[in-house]
Amino acid sequence: MTYRAPVSEMLFALRHVAGLDAVLGDDLTADDARTILEEAARVADGVIAPLNRAGDRHGTPLRDGAVTTAPGWREAYRTWIDGGWNGLSADPDHGGQGLPLLLNAACTEMWNGASIAFGLCPLLTAGGIEALAQHGSEDLKARYLGKLVSGEWTATMNLTEPQAGSDLALLRSRAEPVGDGRYRIVGAKIYITYGEHDLADNIVHLVLARLKDAPAGTRGISLFLVPKVLPDGTLNDLRCSGIEHKLGIHGSPTCSMAFGDDGGAIGWLIGEENRGLACMFTMMNAARLGVGLQGVGIAERATQGALAYARERRQGRAPGAQGTSAIVEHADVQRMLLTMKAYTAAARGICYLTAAALDAARGAEGQAAHDRASLLTPVAKAFSTDIANEVTSLGVQVHGGMGFVEETGAAQHMRDARILGIYEGTNGIQAIDLVTRKLPLRDGATVRAQLASLRRVAEGLLKDADPAYGHMGARLRAGIEALDRATSFQLRALASNRPETALPGATPYLRLFGLVQGAACLAQGARAARAALQAGDTDPGHAGRIALARFFAENELTAAAGLADTVMDGGAFTETAALALVG
Amino acid sequence: MTYRAPVSEMLFALRHVAGLDAVLGDDLTADDARTILEEAARVADGVIAPLNRAGDRHGTPLRDGAVTTAPGWREAYRTWIDGGWNGLSADPDHGGQGLPLLLNAACTEMWNGASIAFGLCPLLTAGGIEALAQHGSEDLKARYLGKLVSGEWTATMNLTEPQAGSDLALLRSRAEPVGDGRYRIVGAKIYITYGEHDLADNIVHLVLARLKDAPAGTRGISLFLVPKVLPDGTLNDLRCSGIEHKLGIHGSPTCSMAFGDDGGAIGWLIGEENRGLACMFTMMNAARLGVGLQGVGIAERATQGALAYARERRQGRAPGAQGTSAIVEHADVQRMLLTMKAYTAAARGICYLTAAALDAARGAEGQAAHDRASLLTPVAKAFSTDIANEVTSLGVQVHGGMGFVEETGAAQHMRDARILGIYEGTNGIQAIDLVTRKLPLRDGATVRAQLASLRRVAEGLLKDADPAYGHMGARLRAGIEALDRATSFQLRALASNRPETALPGATPYLRLFGLVQGAACLAQGARAARAALQAGDTDPGHAGRIALARFFAENELTAAAGLADTVMDGGAFTETAALALVG
Repeated sequence: MTYRAPVSEMLFALRHVAGLDAVLGDDLTADDARTILEEAARVADGVIAPLNRAGDRHGTPLRDGAVTTAPGWREAYRTWIDGGWNGLSADPDHGGQGLPLLLNAACTEMWNGASIAFGLCPLLTAGGIEALAQHGSEDLKARYLGKLVSGEWTATMNLTEPQAGSDLALLRSRAEPVGDGRYRIVGAKIYITYGEHDLADNIVHLVLARLKDAPAGTRGISLFLVPKVLPDGTLNDLRCSGIEHKLGIHGSPTCSMAFGDDGGAIGWLIGEENRGLACMFTMMNAARLGVGLQGVGIAERATQGALAYARERRQGRAPGAQGTSAIVEHADVQRMLLTMKAYTAAARGICYLTAAALDAARGAEGQAAHDRASLLTPVAKAFSTDIANEVTSLGVQVHGGMGFVEETGAAQHMRDARILGIYEGTNGIQAIDLVTRKLPLRDGATVRAQLASLRRVAEGLLKDADPAYGHMGARLRAGIEALDRATSFQLRALASNRPETALPGATPYLRLFGLVQGAACLAQGARAARAALQAGDTDPGHAGRIALARFFAENELTAAAGLADTVMDGGAFTETAALALVG
Repeated sequence: MTYRAPVSEMLFALRHVAGLDAVLGDDLTADDARTILEEAARVADGVIAPLNRAGDRHGTPLRDGAVTTAPGWREAYRTWIDGGWNGLSADPDHGGQGLPLLLNAACTEMWNGASIAFGLCPLLTAGGIEALAQHGSEDLKARYLGKLVSGEWTATMNLTEPQAGSDLALLRSRAEPVGDGRYRIVGAKIYITYGEHDLADNIVHLVLARLKDAPAGTRGISLFLVPKVLPDGTLNDLRCSGIEHKLGIHGSPTCSMAFGDDGGAIGWLIGEENRGLACMFTMMNAARLGVGLQGVGIAERATQGALAYARERRQGRAPGAQGTSAIVEHADVQRMLLTMKAYTAAARGICYLTAAALDAARGAEGQAAHDRASLLTPVAKAFSTDIANEVTSLGVQVHGGMGFVEETGAAQHMRDARILGIYEGTNGIQAIDLVTRKLPLRDGATVRAQLASLRRVAEGLLKDADPAYGHMGARLRAGIEALDRATSFQLRALASNRPETALPGATPYLRLFGLVQGAACLAQGARAARAALQAGDTDPGHAGRIALARFFAENELTAAAGLADTVMDGGAFTETAALALVG
């Protein structure tokens, strides 16, 4: 088996965790939403997923400057853009369908569950669309947005240089005005995803570079649109100079790019001079949620594969069983599978909540929703991708020796997932962003409001007092208190201008946040499932949703208090790290 | 950089954590021990480690029945056996040097830090030596032990068949007596490590098979010695029928073996008929500690690589720094590096303690030490290899985008390490072994004695009351109490014959055990370092040992109470797993 988009689970999370119903109405009914997801699933399952292995095997060879994707990929991409999927939530003014980002989030999960190497291409294009739509001149928008929204052309982010990865202040690429509104760009970039490929007729590179006499550091960086094919149909002065030999996502080319071998690639400024970083963050923030959804997608795929194998493979005898049992009957295998499934669902909930907040930010709620999305984005990115590593590794483990053999496919998921915690801002940087930039939003009121929303879920659980919940209510309440303690600690450290106290605990703080928020998402789902059962709904999934939420609370959320302790008194190491890291 | 065996760290752990001094005397002084480790390090660092990458790239192609290792491997193996390393702790009666297993454990860590694909070959041979020495006839021992101890010949374990992995009761390979003491073996085996290769002139296969009319299940399995080359110099009726395409350890061949294509491979019985499983466990128990040491070795190597990179790579500015900082100055990178280093040291301590218990079992302490080794072996195997996965993944993360590029080497460590939690009994099986077979040893007295030894360390910390310890004493005490609670819970469940209550918590119980035991090892090292500093020792490593132990207690041991909670009330999922695993 490859991948089947879990449409019912997605729809359940969209409605009962992320609040899709708030945007439903005459324009978009619940039936419409299901129809859209089912259509997307047909493409993800039937067109993209079967190509994932071929992408891994074939790679993306570079010959004479041209990069070739695996057989079948061009046709699949064409089918995909012909279905209008690239512009699902883009502005109708630019040819998009204007549907909620929340629905697009579910579809993004599907494309990436089918193949993260494939799903990565439109993810970059989406970032480019966002940057161009928000910061581009009318002229640039008119020339490029339509083709990018349709997916006929794709976009890239050209940020990284060998000496400038997480630290963009070290950028050296140069830009010089030609005088007619155009610029000439010269420089070398690395790790450019889909920097060159054969899926589209044109590639729109968004390139960070410095103007002459620009201030040093990040305040002297500008963003340029540098197309592979110029408006007059000639090729621009840029080329793919190499392809990385990577651990995973072999189906997607990771390129070194050379701009301006022959004097300078032609580009146009996006936004203002020296304000490129702001544009870049627009592009990156959109992409960060997308990367979180990649994590959810591949975790889902790994879980499906492990579960199918565990049902089939017979070894040993479970207590009380007659004869050999399918390994899904063994408690330790069940623990692995439930862990995989629960973390996947928890991360899905967090990512969908983030998308819903972005939708709400466009509506009446405005700034508060925008801030909520800002708060949740680093958690959606880092937690979902951390657990993608864990879940895909468990997927290998469930397969036993077969998991280590490449033909099985479980190992590919683990290899593919490993990039997710690194690109679009490493997960360490997400944690720093969460603590130093997002917690202080509105003087802490944003995170306090989020904690209040979590408490409402816990109170609901305790009020229901359903025996099927087990210790879920108590565990969630304790988890929220742990998150509250750690949050107060971090806010105090920041308020008294002691970043050196807040930073050491950033990563365990983000984990704690994700764990508690994820548990609350599952618990909210459990409450909705219970209510549905009581209302006579016969969906066989409801009892499982309650059981899964309970599993997560009783087996994983137990880590919350320990994480809070680590945040609050674990930071002593920064004083002695140099000692402990000798030798 | 590739790998440098951490000789001083190893010697410190051997002496102050695992009690090497108890076996020191006139025959073996502390200086001798250091000299041996330094000699071993020269071979590991200078001869083996540089070949690790070549092994990954070259693989082990199979052509016309012959398997070729990477260029340089034959010569390296020859150098290694010429140094007498294979028989370091083997019985002098068989040509071994009779040194403590504890010293051999440190050397095993080195071979595998240099290359786990290389170190795997002697690890299998060691298992074969153990099984043969304990269960083989005098005739078989006379014929095979000398060459196996010298390493001129290597050994394999032929257990797994496609339908029989963790569950050996399902074995189908057949054996039939020829009448002259020999047997004819027919069957197909998979996942046979070094089943065929070019490092040695003969390969001694230890093969599990069923005699005709043997009882069904594991009570009808016998163990046979089936050499590639027969005593008369002719080739036996066996061949390598295929090589697996694996995620990692590409340098070591993983073979499918066909026995008896032409009527039956000639073999000799080891031990009694139908008692093969006992012999196999002898072989496997020795190998399990070896696999734990593979985990320590590769974790050490990954840590060294990450640390070297973090010192060199400059990105961003740490709080208070002028200009760009080496990333080792950033708190989140320090956390990753310290986590890597601390888990590596914790796992090393557990593995060395296990080896020391095996040495003690040969001496006056006898059975109690044997039982202690039995208790610790599954922890040494599973905890060390679980953390090897985590540490090597962190190693990729520290490298950022470079970590995902194969040329860097960090990704190879992660790929290589992934098998360790699977082979020689999956880590889930180790956890079940710990809980259901090891906790009940001597009615729980073995584990209670171990808990008492941990308490002595915590009491010592509290007595020292050194401010440099931070919260280490309190955290260790709390961790031990958590382990005590969980242990009592498991013992009660087993005593009342409720394995279905004990089994669901087996994996978190093993993790908790490893965490607390590992923290105690680090704390004991910290106490010894403190005592040395007070005695005027100027070793610059001592302050770092204290800092690392404190880091582990304050940042990782914080998870202990939550793990105990998971063990004690997390098992409810077995009743509802089927519900939660639908769809």
